[in-house]
Amino acid sequence: MKFIIQRDRLIDTVQDVMKAISSRTTIPILTGIKIIASEDGVTFTGSDSDISIESFIPKEEDGNEIIDIKQSGGIVLNAKFFGEIVRKLPMDTVEIEVLNHHQTIIRSGKAEFNLNGQDHDEYPHLPQISEEHVFSIPTDLLKTLIRQTVFAVSTSETRPILTGVNWQIADSVLTCTATDSHRLAMRTAPIDIDPTVSYIAVIPGKSLIELSKILDDSNEPVEIVFTENQILFKSKNILFFSRRLEGNYPDTSRLIPTESKTELVLHARDFLHAIDRASLLARGERNNVVKLATLEEKIIEISSHTPEIGNVIEEIQSQSIEGEELKISFSAKYMMDALKALEGTNITISFTGAMRPFIIRSVEDSSILQLILPVRTF
Amino acid sequence: MKFIIQRDRLIDTVQDVMKAISSRTTIPILTGIKIIASEDGVTFTGSDSDISIESFIPKEEDGNEIIDIKQSGGIVLNAKFFGEIVRKLPMDTVEIEVLNHHQTIIRSGKAEFNLNGQDHDEYPHLPQISEEHVFSIPTDLLKTLIRQTVFAVSTSETRPILTGVNWQIADSVLTCTATDSHRLAMRTAPIDIDPTVSYIAVIPGKSLIELSKILDDSNEPVEIVFTENQILFKSKNILFFSRRLEGNYPDTSRLIPTESKTELVLHARDFLHAIDRASLLARGERNNVVKLATLEEKIIEISSHTPEIGNVIEEIQSQSIEGEELKISFSAKYMMDALKALEGTNITISFTGAMRPFIIRSVEDSSILQLILPVRTF
Repeated sequence: MKFIIQRDRLIDTVQDVMKAISSRTTIPILTGIKIIASEDGVTFTGSDSDISIESFIPKEEDGNEIIDIKQSGGIVLNAKFFGEIVRKLPMDTVEIEVLNHHQTIIRSGKAEFNLNGQDHDEYPHLPQISEEHVFSIPTDLLKTLIRQTVFAVSTSETRPILTGVNWQIADSVLTCTATDSHRLAMRTAPIDIDPTVSYIAVIPGKSLIELSKILDDSNEPVEIVFTENQILFKSKNILFFSRRLEGNYPDTSRLIPTESKTELVLHARDFLHAIDRASLLARGERNNVVKLATLEEKIIEISSHTPEIGNVIEEIQSQSIEGEELKISFSAKYMMDALKALEGTNITISFTGAMRPFIIRSVEDSSILQLILPVRTF
Repeated sequence: MKFIIQRDRLIDTVQDVMKAISSRTTIPILTGIKIIASEDGVTFTGSDSDISIESFIPKEEDGNEIIDIKQSGGIVLNAKFFGEIVRKLPMDTVEIEVLNHHQTIIRSGKAEFNLNGQDHDEYPHLPQISEEHVFSIPTDLLKTLIRQTVFAVSTSETRPILTGVNWQIADSVLTCTATDSHRLAMRTAPIDIDPTVSYIAVIPGKSLIELSKILDDSNEPVEIVFTENQILFKSKNILFFSRRLEGNYPDTSRLIPTESKTELVLHARDFLHAIDRASLLARGERNNVVKLATLEEKIIEISSHTPEIGNVIEEIQSQSIEGEELKISFSAKYMMDALKALEGTNITISFTGAMRPFIIRSVEDSSILQLILPVRTF
């Protein structure tokens, strides 16, 4: 294998692929990055066996030569060292050449690195995916779907299925749901797929976070392929594979109240800042709990109290309060996460009593719903 | 105590003073920030007993009212909570009022915090400093002096005196020296002081780093006062006290070779980058060691080798090589630290053989000297 490649392009690609590579893997060859040069270009692969990322750099793009391929072949190079080396090379182009015994020369200007490589035939094969259920979403929408739901997955392994986001397709709508059993985030989006197709897959939250990092901010379509135990995201030159979580995701539809007893309409940012301030003194025993009470004249009172430190109280003006009077306590963190995920300037919060889950929605956008379970304090 | 203050000014001041406050202090009241309101303004104090910072905000500045003092008095407030609260207040002004039992109200817009304070009379007194030995340096020069030496202090407590920078005044010159016994950094600067005054103080590296952070980038003078066991830096509205290290600083002048056998002149940045690249593969047993060898035609070879990973070799063009041929090994980290501290584009490195300390100087600036002890490998 021997080729000369533009350094900046190599740096970007290695950085993407390295997002799949973990130094804590139990399979030694997976600390490496697989490089395969063919006649058409060079493919880079990284994997931690949960996530695999494959990135292809074509020989030519838009009529410009990116890689000069002298000899095809392959090698596996230690990802950490290779990544650090390419970032610090002195010139705009890099020559990579495999000699005998997997010795690999990385040459740029007067600097010459000689890295001990490994046989690329020993690298595990990526899953073969038959393209059965395929649909596509614009990149920016995909990133938004992830951002608005993934924060609510469980970080505890006691119920592994809750560490994933449930992706459900029915009636040409994709519904993404995440819950850690104390709060829930749900987002829907219409997709271009036959309405008779229905499908469910639970995707690890970690995979979605890494996917989000390597996607750019374009509106180019990302193709999504579901298979038996994998999900594949295909964007331009990048394949992102993730395993799916096994098991049945709980039926969350029963959790979501269909009626409400008190309904508030609020300015989202003012409310977020008030909760943030109240959370400053919401430490101590009950972790991060703030109180909300409705007062006269559309005023809402936010407060918190930690005996050894002090207390905070703040009034905010709502746009409307309808229904019963209410006093309720909840996690400031969950509320701030939910408010940050919502888009739009105004929100509706629908309560069905101080002990029941409540729902936060954007006034302007019905595709997203956030649910929080209150904490008993009043 | 009761006053109304501009929030932004309060935030900046609290941030400065907090640099002296450690949450790991064994004296509980030192987790607090002392606030004293007098007729002229408000003084904020933080201390970890090694460093103390006192910052004064005047009632008026350039004819603008900054604080409206309603009632003088004092309080000590938990620094962590107070700091977080002031950063998140909603309005441009803040009212701070002490009620009975050290209860302190912090009010901004509709937000009202009530913090449990402590009696300011219980806060330790700052050292009383008689202004015996005073001189002043421009702020930017002071920051440069610190930056060019403090990185070379020892991080080990086996010889505590080496964790400080030795400040020596003689013949109207200030000489700052730091060494961890493997390398040494020295910087001199002329100061406006009577040439008969001579003085030595060893200042903890940590104090100088914190001082550097709170000084702005102006060329306003900072007054420096030495006393028996303290050093005081006075800039506009800020007093920074540091304890001095006890004990005798070693005589470092004997370490510095006065003659050389090989002398190189190099472009500093190219050399730094080559060392940085070579250090990538300088891991393993001998920590971070790179080799330098002089070749024909003013060429210098930088290399490193770690058997299990690979090796790197790079040739760089020097401006001149004078004297004997040389092969020498040294810590890449020490060399990079030294090169980053030097100002100017070209450097001279003076060697007296592969086993002796060598000196790095800027060609353009003789006020700074860096010394490194080589490692035996050739």
